Amino acid sequence: MSGERELTAKGLATRERIVEYAAAVTRERGAANTRMECVRVAANVSNSQLFHYFPQGKAEMMIAVARYESRTILADQDARLRTTRTWRAWDEWAEALLGHYDENGSRCGLAALLGQLDQDAPEIREVLAGLLESWEQAIAAGIRSMQSARKISPDLDADTTAGTIVTGILGGIVQMTVTGSTNRLRATVRASIATLKAARQ
Amino acid sequence: MSGERELTAKGLATRERIVEYAAAVTRERGAANTRMECVRVAANVSNSQLFHYFPQGKAEMMIAVARYESRTILADQDARLRTTRTWRAWDEWAEALLGHYDENGSRCGLAALLGQLDQDAPEIREVLAGLLESWEQAIAAGIRSMQSARKISPDLDADTTAGTIVTGILGGIVQMTVTGSTNRLRATVRASIATLKAARQ
Repeated sequence: MSGERELTAKGLATRERIVEYAAAVTRERGAANTRMECVRVAANVSNSQLFHYFPQGKAEMMIAVARYESRTILADQDARLRTTRTWRAWDEWAEALLGHYDENGSRCGLAALLGQLDQDAPEIREVLAGLLESWEQAIAAGIRSMQSARKISPDLDADTTAGTIVTGILGGIVQMTVTGSTNRLRATVRASIATLKAARQ
Repeated sequence: MSGERELTAKGLATRERIVEYAAAVTRERGAANTRMECVRVAANVSNSQLFHYFPQGKAEMMIAVARYESRTILADQDARLRTTRTWRAWDEWAEALLGHYDENGSRCGLAALLGQLDQDAPEIREVLAGLLESWEQAIAAGIRSMQSARKISPDLDADTTAGTIVTGILGGIVQMTVTGSTNRLRATVRASIATLKAARQ
């Protein structure tokens, strides 16, 4: 990824545009079936441009896609969760999450990211580990905000609960990828909210 | 898969042996990195034997691997859960599950199965959907056994709870594949048992 640093502002913008198209193709077709040529056509760049930005080819591009998807998910989740001080905001978070997957199904960034796991690339695992950790931290920060506002008992372990919530979402995404239905994701996210509300004070 | 029906008992045994080796290679290397040649060497068969049993090559073999892994998981889970009538049996189920993943980590049948999802093969999704459904049914049957034994309140929805438990396990396996740790799986399985015990009567 050393090339990234040497790019001009215009070059960085072009690279980012290619990554966005690559992410879209990956969501649609899965990582295994994403071909550089499809991305090239979608992004409307020449072959030499494509390899100028990704000299190491597909593996390098897929890492950039993973980082892009991870950033996108975290920006959204962080904004919704970190300073949550009302139950309404938690309900809205749950409904927004479920609405997103009802709309996009398996053609979502997270399912595409999970699909890359089988490639056994350490960089992809690193991006995913960072995403899961930051996502848990955002949820834990939201739980602590509620605890500071005296709406959730201080006895609830914010970190463990946040870990279990993210784990449930991951499982729900896998269920959705397998069955095509968001039913399990919905039940799991609602059970997470119920766990928080059971610690209401 | 039509060839399967025409095999002699000896032929079926050889095919099964190849599938077992193929499953072992897939657990070790991931579906994407499993090569027919590795399986051939591991199972110690000739190339013509390998293609006699799997005329359509890797895709056909991977479906057989998925079915094999699914059968193995279900046989174990079914035996442990279906007629559970004691809390001790649930605790033992949880500890056996966690022990299995502590020992095998990502080199387990379920992680290997999930790794095949990105291939976008309808047959693989079908095998996985069948596994998840049967696993949920085994857990739901266990919950109903406990309800019949008046140990869990009849108010607990056995099917929804079973769905959420399987979803949590799936998420825990993904977390394990990403981070290399079974901590999240452990917390999630323990939270599942706590949910059941909260409905104790």
